[in-house]
Amino acid sequence: MRFSIFPKETNFFDMFDKLAAVAIEASNYFYEVTSKGIYTEEVVSKMQDIEHRGDQITHAIIDSLNKTFITPFDREDIHALANELDSIIDMLNTMVNRMRVYRITGVNNDLVEFAEVLKKSTAAVELAVKALRDTKNLMSAREHCIEINRLENVGDRMRDNILGKLFDNVTDPIYLIKWKEIIVDAETTLDICEDVANVIESILVKWA
Amino acid sequence: MRFSIFPKETNFFDMFDKLAAVAIEASNYFYEVTSKGIYTEEVVSKMQDIEHRGDQITHAIIDSLNKTFITPFDREDIHALANELDSIIDMLNTMVNRMRVYRITGVNNDLVEFAEVLKKSTAAVELAVKALRDTKNLMSAREHCIEINRLENVGDRMRDNILGKLFDNVTDPIYLIKWKEIIVDAETTLDICEDVANVIESILVKWA
Amino acid sequence: MRFSIFPKETNFFDMFDKLAAVAIEASNYFYEVTSKGIYTEEVVSKMQDIEHRGDQITHAIIDSLNKTFITPFDREDIHALANELDSIIDMLNTMVNRMRVYRITGVNNDLVEFAEVLKKSTAAVELAVKALRDTKNLMSAREHCIEINRLENVGDRMRDNILGKLFDNVTDPIYLIKWKEIIVDAETTLDICEDVANVIESILVKWA
Repeated sequence: MRFSIFPKETNFFDMFDKLAAVAIEASNYFYEVTSKGIYTEEVVSKMQDIEHRGDQITHAIIDSLNKTFITPFDREDIHALANELDSIIDMLNTMVNRMRVYRITGVNNDLVEFAEVLKKSTAAVELAVKALRDTKNLMSAREHCIEINRLENVGDRMRDNILGKLFDNVTDPIYLIKWKEIIVDAETTLDICEDVANVIESILVKWA
Repeated sequence: MRFSIFPKETNFFDMFDKLAAVAIEASNYFYEVTSKGIYTEEVVSKMQDIEHRGDQITHAIIDSLNKTFITPFDREDIHALANELDSIIDMLNTMVNRMRVYRITGVNNDLVEFAEVLKKSTAAVELAVKALRDTKNLMSAREHCIEINRLENVGDRMRDNILGKLFDNVTDPIYLIKWKEIIVDAETTLDICEDVANVIESILVKWA
Repeated sequence: MRFSIFPKETNFFDMFDKLAAVAIEASNYFYEVTSKGIYTEEVVSKMQDIEHRGDQITHAIIDSLNKTFITPFDREDIHALANELDSIIDMLNTMVNRMRVYRITGVNNDLVEFAEVLKKSTAAVELAVKALRDTKNLMSAREHCIEINRLENVGDRMRDNILGKLFDNVTDPIYLIKWKEIIVDAETTLDICEDVANVIESILVKWA
């Protein structure tokens, strides 16, 4: 099935590429915003627009799935891949919104460092998604998945170090409440990238 | 399949109606309790009874599903619809229990406002579920889903405003911990109503 | 299908037994560690090793599932059972890691009490998993599931009492943040044991 050239099938790949591109856009914008440390209504609204485009593509994928008999890989994997890619974007949007609601101002270097790792992980996600198209070079998809897993482990250690520092030093409980949650969210976003990698690996196993 | 008159099939619709009615009962009781601001053992226990009845209907649906070959819509959608409806009730029960555990007393107007939106959303959920029965008028189900989505957006803005006010004004961290979590839970309950709408929309797409 | 003696099938039972044994190991170690109240890097690292072994067995089960046509029970149930068993171990690992990150020292009797219930629940999980093998005695699997459900209810009440005490007495918000989360996690672990019981009950219903 994966070697066929049915137009329906190429659509799924195109749509996944588009969704991955929106995830890239979201993580780039997240990096830009956290580097400036300014969380205005305008910033929140721009991230919401990105998130909204992600939603639309995700819905288009699910709608197509419900109307298509022949799919390039298992229906449940298409469903999961669309939802997990969408969740990356949702989470980045949630975080920017939270910064505004929590009245955060100023640059937090720990968060910027996380935003960099998130950019790298989203880049690997995009490459892994694109690699699914090329059945002759599935090894490449696998390598990007390994990179996503590696970055998730990096994120785990970063989160533990940052939270450990917070509990060592912080005396203002409200500051701790805010930053503990934001840092945990940042790591959760890397977990979602790993969930994407897991879906892709499960597709690859079935193709093996 | 949806036009057939197999008794087995009507059972699913009846059971979903019953489950939606319990969700209505739970959100009515939640509104009543938050309007009074009194969270006694008796109140917690009455909400638990409601939740228990929801559990029983949900189990009956899943059991019937496991023993039925012909179903009015996809098995996975029946499973998801039952679980999401049950989750609305679970969440309302969790919230009332939390109020007791957190030693909350007195009326919080923000929460009462949320309870009103929850009543409206659960009412729309019930109508959407009932509308699934009438295949000649599926447009009606779609409209109720749109209303559920609208109310979820209303809830998002309410949550952000209420949390923003908390972070602006509150100096008692333990007060903030309590109310931040309760308000987030209230919005999560609206998210679950939206999950119900998503399942129903996915059923409608397949029927289209 | 369940009466057949295909080697492939027995493999799944063997792998589930191995995974359940790792869950037992994790809950025993969790009990040992909380009873001592010492959370060193070494302790965290030993729990991570256990978690890593759980991951490997889970991946082996999912891989086998993707390559096997005939399975002893529904594919989705095999998938869910493996993931839920793995989640028990993950959660115990998360908790030990959290104790270290939150700079916890000393024995907390409430947590030790939870660790005891967790040992009992994991023991019942192992027995329920093993009982799936013996199709002549499925009643036994059902009884272990009832015990897991009972222990989850015990845990609910324990959590509510412990959190109630925290909100009654604690004046240090950072202490409250730490212990509220740890106690909630402990109860969540019992919820996951119940999720395992739910999967097993759904397998039993299909076999009935």
